[in-house]
Amino acid sequence: MGKVEVVADAVISNQSEKDQGFVVTPWVVKGNVDYDKLIDQFGTSRITDELISRIKKLTGEIHPFLRRRIFYSHRDLDWILDRYEAGEKFCLYTGRGPSENVHLGHLVPWIFTKYLQDKFDAELYFEFTDDEKFLLGSTSDLESAKRIAYSNMLDLIALGFDPKKTFIFIDTDYMETMYPIAAKIAKHITFSTARSVFGFENSTNVGMIFFPALEAATCFLPSVLHGKNVPCLIPAGIDQDPYWRGIAREVAPKLGYYKPAQIHGKFMPGLGQGGKMSASQPETAIFTTDPPDVVKRKVLSSFTGGRATVEEQRRLGAQADICPIYHYYYYLFEENDTELARIYNDCTSGTLLCGDCKAMLAERVQEYVAKHQEKREKAKELIEDFIVADIRGGLKKRSGLS
Amino acid sequence: MGKVEVVADAVISNQSEKDQGFVVTPWVVKGNVDYDKLIDQFGTSRITDELISRIKKLTGEIHPFLRRRIFYSHRDLDWILDRYEAGEKFCLYTGRGPSENVHLGHLVPWIFTKYLQDKFDAELYFEFTDDEKFLLGSTSDLESAKRIAYSNMLDLIALGFDPKKTFIFIDTDYMETMYPIAAKIAKHITFSTARSVFGFENSTNVGMIFFPALEAATCFLPSVLHGKNVPCLIPAGIDQDPYWRGIAREVAPKLGYYKPAQIHGKFMPGLGQGGKMSASQPETAIFTTDPPDVVKRKVLSSFTGGRATVEEQRRLGAQADICPIYHYYYYLFEENDTELARIYNDCTSGTLLCGDCKAMLAERVQEYVAKHQEKREKAKELIEDFIVADIRGGLKKRSGLS
Repeated sequence: MGKVEVVADAVISNQSEKDQGFVVTPWVVKGNVDYDKLIDQFGTSRITDELISRIKKLTGEIHPFLRRRIFYSHRDLDWILDRYEAGEKFCLYTGRGPSENVHLGHLVPWIFTKYLQDKFDAELYFEFTDDEKFLLGSTSDLESAKRIAYSNMLDLIALGFDPKKTFIFIDTDYMETMYPIAAKIAKHITFSTARSVFGFENSTNVGMIFFPALEAATCFLPSVLHGKNVPCLIPAGIDQDPYWRGIAREVAPKLGYYKPAQIHGKFMPGLGQGGKMSASQPETAIFTTDPPDVVKRKVLSSFTGGRATVEEQRRLGAQADICPIYHYYYYLFEENDTELARIYNDCTSGTLLCGDCKAMLAERVQEYVAKHQEKREKAKELIEDFIVADIRGGLKKRSGLS
Repeated sequence: MGKVEVVADAVISNQSEKDQGFVVTPWVVKGNVDYDKLIDQFGTSRITDELISRIKKLTGEIHPFLRRRIFYSHRDLDWILDRYEAGEKFCLYTGRGPSENVHLGHLVPWIFTKYLQDKFDAELYFEFTDDEKFLLGSTSDLESAKRIAYSNMLDLIALGFDPKKTFIFIDTDYMETMYPIAAKIAKHITFSTARSVFGFENSTNVGMIFFPALEAATCFLPSVLHGKNVPCLIPAGIDQDPYWRGIAREVAPKLGYYKPAQIHGKFMPGLGQGGKMSASQPETAIFTTDPPDVVKRKVLSSFTGGRATVEEQRRLGAQADICPIYHYYYYLFEENDTELARIYNDCTSGTLLCGDCKAMLAERVQEYVAKHQEKREKAKELIEDFIVADIRGGLKKRSGLS
């Protein structure tokens, strides 16, 4: 198992998690995550075949991320579907802490969010938490975090979200709407609660201590803007669960709102040995802004589940389950299940050697990234259609909400 | 000495202050305050005759509040005057937590602030902390605190501030400017620091824990809006000192700003026995909205320093020093020092009886309040000239700042 280190200022000091070789908090994901254990630890529900059938009936199409259980856990997703079936639309909420360039791992929940938007005709509220990244020390100043937010936004828009139903805001630009909601939440959260949920310490700065109220506020933003209670579904990495479990879901009934529902994703691995894709290890992460030769180099230099020699691999087969290359096919680069099974079998039987497998993936990733970059370039002209900044009430007006 | 009780959610648990019979924190002032002791405890400086002479030389006029040492303590006032003499103008910053109607005790620092504005041609930044009052539980909801802020604002404007140099804002209306400044401050304040300065506890809500950063932010707002370092002088009750001492003055150098200077006032007493005027004891407070008969009744029912019988009073004289009626003349209702001395001497010699003294004061207070109410009514039409709300950058534009 990967070595576990505590790297952020504010991090859950959860000894039991450390002992088991991984840490998952809203700020740190380290080690080889045991996703089944997380379901038990966090007390979430597994996405069952039955739930998937129900989604298929409603949408006509099951996204590979669901079929492959990349999105695998939830809270109250069944309740969201009940409401939907009863004619009550839900909103989607997700976001990003902007401190670095976007990599493929970041795209995974956003791609899934777009699927949900399309299939359920759902408004998306997307929060860039520039304040969080600054307060955590991930950026040296607040202005940098904001600049990065604008850059990251291009990646989001490039995925094809519907501007009529997608509202993007940067925290510090939208504070006159967000802060009053956050203050109402904050009044119900004691330091004790925040400490037990997030592992805050006496040395944590007071901005970070308040911040969870701002992140929770977006759950109720659709209700505030619509002037009525709107169900909210949050598609995000399971590391974000403490926000909703410990804060938003606790406070919602006290403020007269629905508890936000969630659907939890796994983390796309990096190209190294174990662990999720991380911008702090740039050689094992594919950034959306990487040029083709860099993409190729990174993929070809990847750790694999291969054997020490060709002879050995022909004899024993390679280990697809621990191989990031295989996982890349699984996550993003082989949508066809039959083809994916073929790759898996050829790998584990020793038919497919790592060099060929990496070369094939490198081409696909290069093509994917190149196409993304084109769309990302075009997004620069679309940004105004999405962003809520500087103009109070702009969101409300644009979305035609009452 | 008055009984000391802890009444607010978040209050300094300063046992030594309790032991000595009074508590002075930003949220609670109880008991008979020993102002000299506060100078020692807080580590502030006394306003000396020399400093007063210097102000007189610069302004030509010494306000009775200075002469009478109602404003009696400071931090770096001498430095502010150095800068002023060197041609560098300072800004004034004060504010109010809106949870109740304004009484005469609230007007004291505002009247003094107007004197400073007039004499030093200083911009005033006035912050209404609706969020603080809501987070403290002083109002049941945020909207009430805001409504009260708008009402309180009329009392402020009624005092005759110059709209060209006075910028009033309500926290939740101005958060897109305030929050980024507060976040930069908050990053430098740990929970430990906030706890030791304000006595926060584990049960304190996370909104209150963050709030001091917002109150400190206004110290640097003039610098942010002017785009250069602007000295800031805060005229306020000495109870507000912890904000500046523990937070703003500590953080200022880290953010490249001047430390805010302060000038500290005493509290106008209530009409009861001991303690400052407080809206929580409405019968001993004169509200600016009280009708004439109520004003009269309150003054005539006041506690006094009088003796048990007329005979005894004629023989021993009354005790002006413990008498709120005398203090009312001292604070607001007898500007002439010779006249004031006459009242004091007539009182303590037994010539002036309490009934007559109260009747004379009642007339003056009635007249004062009636005039204030006229100006307060007119203020309703002026409010737009002062308030910064809903429009980002409005403050900057209106003030002609670069």
